[in-house]
Amino acid sequence: MSNDLGGTTNRTRLRRLPEKAAYDAATIHAIVDATSVCHVATVVDGHPLVLPSLHVRHDDTLLLHGSRSSRLLRAMVAAESVCVAVTLVDGLIVARSTFESSVAYRSAVLFGPAELVDDATEQSVAIDRLIDGLLPGRSGEVRASTPDELRRTSVVRVRIVEASAKVSEGPPEDSPEDLAGSAWAGVVPLETRWGTPQPAPDGAVGRGEIPIPASVEGLERGW
Amino acid sequence: MSNDLGGTTNRTRLRRLPEKAAYDAATIHAIVDATSVCHVATVVDGHPLVLPSLHVRHDDTLLLHGSRSSRLLRAMVAAESVCVAVTLVDGLIVARSTFESSVAYRSAVLFGPAELVDDATEQSVAIDRLIDGLLPGRSGEVRASTPDELRRTSVVRVRIVEASAKVSEGPPEDSPEDLAGSAWAGVVPLETRWGTPQPAPDGAVGRGEIPIPASVEGLERGW
Repeated sequence: MSNDLGGTTNRTRLRRLPEKAAYDAATIHAIVDATSVCHVATVVDGHPLVLPSLHVRHDDTLLLHGSRSSRLLRAMVAAESVCVAVTLVDGLIVARSTFESSVAYRSAVLFGPAELVDDATEQSVAIDRLIDGLLPGRSGEVRASTPDELRRTSVVRVRIVEASAKVSEGPPEDSPEDLAGSAWAGVVPLETRWGTPQPAPDGAVGRGEIPIPASVEGLERGW
Repeated sequence: MSNDLGGTTNRTRLRRLPEKAAYDAATIHAIVDATSVCHVATVVDGHPLVLPSLHVRHDDTLLLHGSRSSRLLRAMVAAESVCVAVTLVDGLIVARSTFESSVAYRSAVLFGPAELVDDATEQSVAIDRLIDGLLPGRSGEVRASTPDELRRTSVVRVRIVEASAKVSEGPPEDSPEDLAGSAWAGVVPLETRWGTPQPAPDGAVGRGEIPIPASVEGLERGW
């Protein structure tokens, strides 16, 4: 995999807190791969638009999907490039001052052009990658997508040409004067985990005839 | 509080899944207030830029802050309007088909102009609102911000002039044909909670002399 992903340009170089910046592909990919939810920004009639979306990374591309008539996907493809942020919140950094208090997080910001995946086979493979990104192995547990479902779905591929990451994890960095004070300081972790699966109320699942599948059983840490 | 927030325009009217759309201010505010983390999009040299940020809502405005030299805040103020997304992920909606599978979430998307808060008193009040949004009551537990800290911080106020919300919660809506199949379906909740506070290793806190403060003790459900 190319390390170009880690290149710093004027756009991706972090101006603030450079000690928190990481540009290597492994760091960036680990953040992008740790969740299926991202925020995609594009420009519509000169105005910014950001919406949450599901994504999965494949090599140096990001795959996203939506309804064929999605205005976000259309605007993405029409734009010269899009910007995608992937953010995981890990907790609160509670400092002895407001100024030093913040959030513990891992964040990646990616830039690149978006194009429609119009080949039917590639589209189908991309949709399997997306569902398996959400729930590993799920594509093997459900029927194949129908031609009508594929027709109603658009898949967009974002080629990641620039990216940066920022990781902030505490402990708080209080000034020497504040260290002598009486205020508490520390980190409050934000813990995420997958809860007990709630079976659908209808069909054979609702009658309790279908066991929890391997994909759901295998879910690991939350986002 | 104005209900104008709920107005639907061409920009905020949801084109897809309109049954999942909610436009009332109460729904939108509840989503915005349920977390301190948002994603802010603006346009820089014609290109979209989205970055994570902390926010707190005050009436029909959103307050954000950053370093005085933050390129995001500068670009926000320079733009005619910005777009802010607040998203909470509640779980996986596992359908009997890939097509119907998705994520359970609550999302609000806000649009409006951004302006710098340049009055020193208003800036100080805004910073207290931000820290109390992150950790309720915290502003009363720490010293006041110093003039130097305030000089190094910019606060931006986004006036929310358009907004929409989308809530997707399951159970999955499978087609009648799929209901007869053998695939499992249901919802896997994503649970978030605040973990055990980790005291800073230094100062009196590190020596175990400072108890966990009320603000941290009082933290309720995670984001």
